[in-house]
This record gives sequence, C-alpha cells and structure tokens, in this order.
Amino acid sequence: MGSIAFDAVRTPFGSRDRMLGGAASHFALAASMLHPVRIVGPVGDDFGEAEMAVLRTRNTNVDDVEQVPGGKTFFWAGVYGDDLNTRETLETALNVFEHFEPKLSPESQSADTLFLANIQPSLQLEVRRQCRAARFVAMDSMNLWIDIARDELVQMIGEVDCLMLNDEELRQLTGKPTLLAAAREVLSWGPAGPSMIVGKQGEHGSALITADDYFSIPAFPLERVVDPTGAGDVFAGGFMGLIASQRERGLDGDVLRNAMAYGTALASFNVEQFGTEALQSATPEAVAERVGALWRMGRFERLDVDLIR
Amino acid sequence: MGSIAFDAVRTPFGSRDRMLGGAASHFALAASMLHPVRIVGPVGDDFGEAEMAVLRTRNTNVDDVEQVPGGKTFFWAGVYGDDLNTRETLETALNVFEHFEPKLSPESQSADTLFLANIQPSLQLEVRRQCRAARFVAMDSMNLWIDIARDELVQMIGEVDCLMLNDEELRQLTGKPTLLAAAREVLSWGPAGPSMIVGKQGEHGSALITADDYFSIPAFPLERVVDPTGAGDVFAGGFMGLIASQRERGLDGDVLRNAMAYGTALASFNVEQFGTEALQSATPEAVAERVGALWRMGRFERLDVDLIR
Repeated sequence: MGSIAFDAVRTPFGSRDRMLGGAASHFALAASMLHPVRIVGPVGDDFGEAEMAVLRTRNTNVDDVEQVPGGKTFFWAGVYGDDLNTRETLETALNVFEHFEPKLSPESQSADTLFLANIQPSLQLEVRRQCRAARFVAMDSMNLWIDIARDELVQMIGEVDCLMLNDEELRQLTGKPTLLAAAREVLSWGPAGPSMIVGKQGEHGSALITADDYFSIPAFPLERVVDPTGAGDVFAGGFMGLIASQRERGLDGDVLRNAMAYGTALASFNVEQFGTEALQSATPEAVAERVGALWRMGRFERLDVDLIR
Repeated sequence: MGSIAFDAVRTPFGSRDRMLGGAASHFALAASMLHPVRIVGPVGDDFGEAEMAVLRTRNTNVDDVEQVPGGKTFFWAGVYGDDLNTRETLETALNVFEHFEPKLSPESQSADTLFLANIQPSLQLEVRRQCRAARFVAMDSMNLWIDIARDELVQMIGEVDCLMLNDEELRQLTGKPTLLAAAREVLSWGPAGPSMIVGKQGEHGSALITADDYFSIPAFPLERVVDPTGAGDVFAGGFMGLIASQRERGLDGDVLRNAMAYGTALASFNVEQFGTEALQSATPEAVAERVGALWRMGRFERLDVDLIR
C-alpha cells in the first residue's frame, strides 16, 4: 500500500513534467520480479490506461487500485541538486489521498507479506489492521510524520516487523546520534514492535540491524545517476519480494541478507533512468548479474596477520 | 610524513584544550600495530617528552621528528556538531610547518612503503622525491589544496600509487558527480599515476576502486562516537601497515581488502575516545575481533532465486 502518483522531476541530467511515480508504483515494479504483487492505493480520473498498464507489469494485480470519480491523482514535483544528494520538494498535492479510506479486497486482506509505503501513519495503521493474516510487515515513513504525527507514527511502528527509514530519520525519530544507537532504541520499543531495522543511506547503501546481527551493503556503484526518485521504494520492493519468495524457507539471516542484495541491485537500475522507465524493462539476467557483483564487493578472505602489541 | 600537532577539540561528549594530535601521530599509532614505523615531521620547543613518548608507542622511530629551536608545534582547534558529521575549524596555525624543509635520514629515505598525510602538496612532493626506494606510496589531501594549490596537487597525485580522499573531495577534484566516475577519472590520469583510489565516507565506511575491482566496507558500527578527529589518518595507518606487513606476499586483492578491514577496525577504536587515547592502549585481540566482525558484516551466501520475467 502506498502512493501512486504523477511526478515532475528535474535533475542535472534532464527533466520530466509528468510521469508515473509514487512509492507503490516503484515498489511493485521491483517486487514483481520476485513474487506476485497486489497494489493498494487510490488514483484519480486523470490516471489513464497507459499508466495502469505499467502498474500491471509482470502481472501485478491492480484490483485494489481505487479510481476515485472526480478525483485527481497524487502529484509530487521536485528538483535535485548537482550531486543528486540534495533535493527540494516544489509541490506535494495529496489529492485523492486526502480522504482515502482503504477498503481492501478479501484477497489483499489475506496477504502473507505486507509493505506499508510512506504515507500518513493513520492510513498505514488502517491497512495494517485489515491485513490480519500478514506474517511479515514492513513500513517506510519520512521526517514529515516524525514532525507532525509522531504519536501515531510510534504506534504504527509498534505493529510492524521491520522499520525502513533513512538513517537521518532514524536519528531524528530517536534522538540518538548514531545509526546503531537509533536502531537499538527502536528495537527496544516492545515485544510486539520491529525485530529489524533497515537504515537507508542513499548512495552509501544500507544496513540491516537486528538484536544480534548487523549487515551492511553498499549501493551498487554507478558512474552516472539520472534520477534517484523512488530508489528507496524499489529497494523495499526487492527486499520484500525476496522475503515473500522464500516463505517456505523462513526468515533466516541468509534470506534477509539476500533481500538486502536484491533491493540494492534493483534500486541501481531504477536510478539510471527517469521514474519507472528502467524497472519496466529490467531483465532477470541483468538483476542476477548485479547481485553477483554485490556478493563480491563486500567480502574478503582473512589473512593471517601478526599484530604487534 | 605528516603533521604532529596539538589539537583543541570540542564534541557533544566533552572537550580537550590541548592534546596530542596530527595526522602523522594518529597514523603511526595505528600502523605500528602492523609494521615498524618511522615518523617524519617537525615539532616545536613546546613538544615535550611525554608527547614524544606517545609517538614512540610500539617502538615507532622518531629520529626524523625534527624539533625546531624556538618553533611552535602545529596547532588545530575545531568543534563538532551534534551528530559529529559536521565540524568547524576554529583555528589552524601551521607554525613550524610553515618553513619546514624535510631532510630525511638515509633510513627513512630507504622506506619501502610511504604515506604522505594531508599537508601542502609541495612538501609531499619533496618527501616523495627523497624516498626513491619506495615501492608503494599513498597520499591524503583535503579541499583546501584543491582550492588553492590544484596544479601542485595534481602533479603530486601523478607520483603515487594510491590516492585516499573523502568522497566529496574526489568529486570536487574531478568535477564528476559519483564516486565511481570520480575515481575512474583519477585512474585515467596517466600510467605513472595512482592504480587505486580509496574513497573515505566517514560513518558510512569506505570504498577501494581499481581499474577492475570495487570493494566496499562499512564503518565499524558504534553506539557512541566521542571524537572523530584523526579517524581518516588511523584508517590510513591500518591500511598502509597491513600492506607493509604483507610485502613478501605482494599486493593482491586479498591484501588490499584486508588493508581496508584493518584500517576500518583501527579507526573505530580511535573515535571512541579523544585524540590518540584509544590507540595507545588498543590490544591485538580487540583489533582482531573487530576485523572478524567486519568480515561477517559484509558477506552473504547467494540463494537460488527464480526471477520473474
């Protein structure tokens, strides 16, 4: 569940005035490479069959994409700085999201794996409660909700297995100065709360922290990044898709580490083109190749070293 | 070769008005855990036997630490922001470095492995040329020299095997927007220039880039960071010390990756206390334990995954 949007984006490498965007769109395009996906979210009258066809890529189910009569689709406009590490939001129009009351189909309510993309915590909570069968639930959020809806956000965090946030947001949420301290703080928020934290670090990669493990993976190195929009959602799609694909095996450390690797590999395609362009055409072979490169990038064989006392 | 200094540092966790600092001091305390070290650099009359004793930790040779009569030791004062990611320099007094003319002893001139810490490129060049026997040379620098001594800096880079810089500095130096593009630009600067680039990313770790390899390692995760000053120099000390310790084996990918790991592990001790305090007392056992944790933190076993086309 999350936003389905039109985005206007300007980066040093070009611009798009109106293209398919939104967290749920990006997520689904990635997750659908690993497991069947159902999208939940509202769109307006202005959302056409061409956009709906993109959402359906790799048979993603759109029965719970609610087209609101007379409504307008969520709109976001932003501009990136020269090094793509900073961005300014020029406009956010919630439009159909403002009064969205999710009523999930029985099929979506019975989902085993649930991702709640960044949106009002109250909406995330509503969807969480409709999906009683979900055995693994993850959520994203953003600084805005920490600022204006902190209590609801903390309540929501208490009902998921995995919290994914940018590492600055984790620090802001907890008031702790390091990623590790911030993650451990959230892990301590109670037995029903998250058992794992994913700290997203943009171009520096991401880290997965549990009570007894720490895994770090770099972003896939690229010479050229065209549009970072949606990279976090694509990462989440790869992460959740891999976990959903391994439900028979269960949720061990190898599954989680592979989930981080697939999320990372898929995100690297996303940022090479504008919007959803790259993920529409990514091939299994290309994804597997980048996962293999990431496998090699983070490992070393220990040498026998004599340290001097 | 590099600065030996008195530092005044204020962080959210406390402050020190005057403590031993400087790139060469931090470097030597780390490298000496892996290989014998000789320090080259000037100090003033105000540099006492207590400080000299710290430099001599683990038998580091100080014959080329030149005590300038009537001179004052290099001084740096800085203050860190709340999350320790930003720092402001309050004062830099080059003092004895202003007119330093390095005259290395024959023993230092015959060094096999040479590190040129951040200082005026002209000084680095002078020392580089005195060390004709060096088979592996690395250097650090900073944004100041990119701004005011770019031509000398580029000339200097052309005479080393390894360039270590913060990744923002690599982008500033090359005008390239990503670390990978920036590193490849420097690698293309000519056959006598660097064959490897280390991009330092602070709390996010570091990356090693060669013509045909990319290795990334996270910073060792800590709940509490007290003073980041010197972390990059300690990293360099571990990196160079490991390489020096493996000269018989040569400079293969495993040696370089272990060098990154030892640099990372040693830097993590450095930031847990002020100045050089932690490295004076770090034990081989504790360092080996952190290298082992880093070994585990970056690796995953690939699962057999069926991707959907």
